[in-house]
Amino acid sequence: MSNIIENLIYQFSRLPGVGKRSARRIIINILKNKETILIPLINSLSEADKFVKKCIICGNLDIGEKCNICLDDKRDHSVICVVESISDLWALERSNFFKGKYHVLGGNLSAIGNNTPQTINLDNLLKRAEEEAIKEIIIATNATIEGQTTAFYITEKLDNLNVKITRLAYGMPIGSELDYLDEGTLSAAYESRKKFTS
Amino acid sequence: MSNIIENLIYQFSRLPGVGKRSARRIIINILKNKETILIPLINSLSEADKFVKKCIICGNLDIGEKCNICLDDKRDHSVICVVESISDLWALERSNFFKGKYHVLGGNLSAIGNNTPQTINLDNLLKRAEEEAIKEIIIATNATIEGQTTAFYITEKLDNLNVKITRLAYGMPIGSELDYLDEGTLSAAYESRKKFTS
Repeated sequence: MSNIIENLIYQFSRLPGVGKRSARRIIINILKNKETILIPLINSLSEADKFVKKCIICGNLDIGEKCNICLDDKRDHSVICVVESISDLWALERSNFFKGKYHVLGGNLSAIGNNTPQTINLDNLLKRAEEEAIKEIIIATNATIEGQTTAFYITEKLDNLNVKITRLAYGMPIGSELDYLDEGTLSAAYESRKKFTS
Repeated sequence: MSNIIENLIYQFSRLPGVGKRSARRIIINILKNKETILIPLINSLSEADKFVKKCIICGNLDIGEKCNICLDDKRDHSVICVVESISDLWALERSNFFKGKYHVLGGNLSAIGNNTPQTINLDNLLKRAEEEAIKEIIIATNATIEGQTTAFYITEKLDNLNVKITRLAYGMPIGSELDYLDEGTLSAAYESRKKFTS
């Protein structure tokens, strides 16, 4: 096989969720459809290379220095939702109910992880909490050990500021059946039970 | 989300085996690592666009008009191995035992499929079988209904030529356990049983 094709397979096999076998399938598909797949792909990637930047405020990816969410005056600038990753931010945006601003940590803290409070985007959050007129910070880290550790750490750091700190609720996912839920979820749902309202 | 990012996600979600969710993960990974992932990827794709071509003889993908396999004088030019797709050709090449030439059909025939003998690369095979000094044609289509239908059709077409036609053996995959094999495989292995040699 030519070096060019092998190199292309290597480039794709490094992408998350793409192994060597899928990379080969993708490459054949791309190379067989130059006009309809390969060239549009090159154009999109080049355009993204030129224009897409990390927002200097929240860490989201968008066109320009500040992302559209941070620039949007119609959104509530007094609420910041703290997420671990850009994909979490996008997931919340797809749900389309949160109308505040975001802060992307770019990782989480764990006892054995590589990240430290210095490597995740935490200082900026503290600065924002101090400088912007923030009323509420919603911690929306993952419901994993690492996400919870990170949430605790952030909460401690923000403790001395006059800001309301909340976190997303733990409980039964909508549509789930008790029989299939793990003990942690069940016990969290039990602990946070609410008065029945009809 | 900006149009550029959305378009990029769309481009990736069209690739085989990549859904919308994986496309988003890939895009974030690419955009967060411009120097190490995005730019090498653009370069590889552009290079492939410029240089990679379909071999005019066998249908393989390589640099130049004729692929390296077809040009290689050390390989046996009297044997053609017929495969359905380029990935099948690559799989055989990785196994590294076949030293003849190939012919890529670019599809298979089936009663309900979209392909006809005209849309798969069959005429070229017949031409090669007539014009080149071919001694053996090995049918290496998939062991599926469609692959077998295609094999039968090709065999009929080649029948009047003075060429030995063979096909890959059906039987137990090496390392397999009887208990897990389907009836078709077991019965094929039984029918093709061979004298035990120690």
